[in-house]
Amino acid sequence: MTSLTDAKKTIAISVGDINGIGIELVLKNHNEVAKLCNPIYCINDELLTQASKLLELEIPTNFKTYPTYKNFKIKAGEVTEKSGFFSYLSFLDAINLATDGKVDGICTLPINKKAWQKAGVHYVGHTDMLRDIFKKDAIMMLGCTEMFVALYTEHIPLKDVPKEIEAKKLYSFFKNFYTFENPKKVAVLGLNPHAGDDGVLGDEEKEIIKAIQKINKTLGSEIFQGPFVPDTIFTPNSRKNFNYFIAMYHDQGLAPLKALHFEEGINVTLGLPIKRTSVDHGTAFDKAYKKNNNLSNLSYLNAIKKLVE
Amino acid sequence: MTSLTDAKKTIAISVGDINGIGIELVLKNHNEVAKLCNPIYCINDELLTQASKLLELEIPTNFKTYPTYKNFKIKAGEVTEKSGFFSYLSFLDAINLATDGKVDGICTLPINKKAWQKAGVHYVGHTDMLRDIFKKDAIMMLGCTEMFVALYTEHIPLKDVPKEIEAKKLYSFFKNFYTFENPKKVAVLGLNPHAGDDGVLGDEEKEIIKAIQKINKTLGSEIFQGPFVPDTIFTPNSRKNFNYFIAMYHDQGLAPLKALHFEEGINVTLGLPIKRTSVDHGTAFDKAYKKNNNLSNLSYLNAIKKLVE
Repeated sequence: MTSLTDAKKTIAISVGDINGIGIELVLKNHNEVAKLCNPIYCINDELLTQASKLLELEIPTNFKTYPTYKNFKIKAGEVTEKSGFFSYLSFLDAINLATDGKVDGICTLPINKKAWQKAGVHYVGHTDMLRDIFKKDAIMMLGCTEMFVALYTEHIPLKDVPKEIEAKKLYSFFKNFYTFENPKKVAVLGLNPHAGDDGVLGDEEKEIIKAIQKINKTLGSEIFQGPFVPDTIFTPNSRKNFNYFIAMYHDQGLAPLKALHFEEGINVTLGLPIKRTSVDHGTAFDKAYKKNNNLSNLSYLNAIKKLVE
Repeated sequence: MTSLTDAKKTIAISVGDINGIGIELVLKNHNEVAKLCNPIYCINDELLTQASKLLELEIPTNFKTYPTYKNFKIKAGEVTEKSGFFSYLSFLDAINLATDGKVDGICTLPINKKAWQKAGVHYVGHTDMLRDIFKKDAIMMLGCTEMFVALYTEHIPLKDVPKEIEAKKLYSFFKNFYTFENPKKVAVLGLNPHAGDDGVLGDEEKEIIKAIQKINKTLGSEIFQGPFVPDTIFTPNSRKNFNYFIAMYHDQGLAPLKALHFEEGINVTLGLPIKRTSVDHGTAFDKAYKKNNNLSNLSYLNAIKKLVE
């Protein structure tokens, strides 16, 4: 038993916006999380004590923290400068613990973008900040064990997506994705309806085909398959054949994913020197510090599981 | 009981490509279909007899046909000129029965596009032909009772979609949709990720907002709502609030729809002088005239139900 315990990975957990639901998830699920890993929570004892009193939840005895600065009054469900800055620091401490090799990966609880703005944090969100810190083309992958979707393009207007479909860039993306996730096979989606229907409905699929051929040649195996017709690759029968999908744009992958797996979905950042996962929900200010709010812990536990697998 | 029977609607059914699964669905489900409506099947007796022998399925006694020309040898699972032309004529007969007022609507079983090409039929498919015959902006709507998705744009390259997002055109579409489907409320999707995020990720949503405001003013009620964030409008909780969705483009609506409701989905054509529904699957040549092929009749029965509701 001791050896099994010793083999557990150590994970830094940034608690997110303290005015949101993150800290409740942390306190309620510590015992479950501690079975999976040795968690270190980035929060100072004063703020933790304050939250535990407000939530009427005891702090578990084996609750290890890293003392992210600083203490202030929690305002349940409110967007504040102080909570915004604290959530930024909690995330930064988690990153530093990982880059210093003190933890094996980090799991992030939700921040509020407007609170970051109020606090003068100039990043849009976690992933944006990670890209800047590490100067890497991080890949956003969302989903759960049954179905992970990596996004080739993310937060850009739809009209800018087609010009991004270019064989060389796609090849780099595929290679980066393969290096970090090491999938046995991947379904690559086409861009156009019916995947272009042999060029009748758009011809960007030619670039996707070139990139697929090149990456499979590099890997010496037909790992990447497609391009598949975007509206039929997610039917129950097609899904049986794949656990990994690469979408050409945000909603192509995330609309079907969230329709099928909303509560259990997580957000994974690939391509960085550190391992990072996140829950795929927000701060839920409307539910924060409220009794009987029926918080789902599926996304949180899955985010931890992905780090220790 | 007699009065109920008399009140049943009469529906013309085009049997689709005779080398495919359409005729098997017809023969196996006649009793069920006859409970819902008075069906008239567009197929001649010789071809019907041939199919029934091949399938080892008896022709029901109360099986009413319209004698679509002509008889030839059925070639299970093959793309042939003759089966292509027959499926075209079967569809045309069904349309004529409807325009002559002899039936209340038509239900179409799948044709094969390549067989139509071989037969010299210059239409891409059913909807295309209906638009040409009636010279109307027919609307494609797919789905089932839980969730119908109407497509604002359909079979065009993705790069051409953003320039179609224009308030006047959208307003006409909304008006046409409301006239023919009479929904209590409709969720209209945005075009861009996060529905543009206040213009940061694209600004076509401005046009959508204008059109929504105008149609609601015309109708004197907030029937059309949105624009909604495309990747979260189909989550389980959001879906509870709507049965009708308008997607800006093909895969935005159909990928989540088919992920959730594949077997039971149907295709409805709105905006025509006649009522038309169709199954939302193909000819399934690989399963045609084969034992134990596990054909699902959900789409077929739903297509009939939609016509008689």
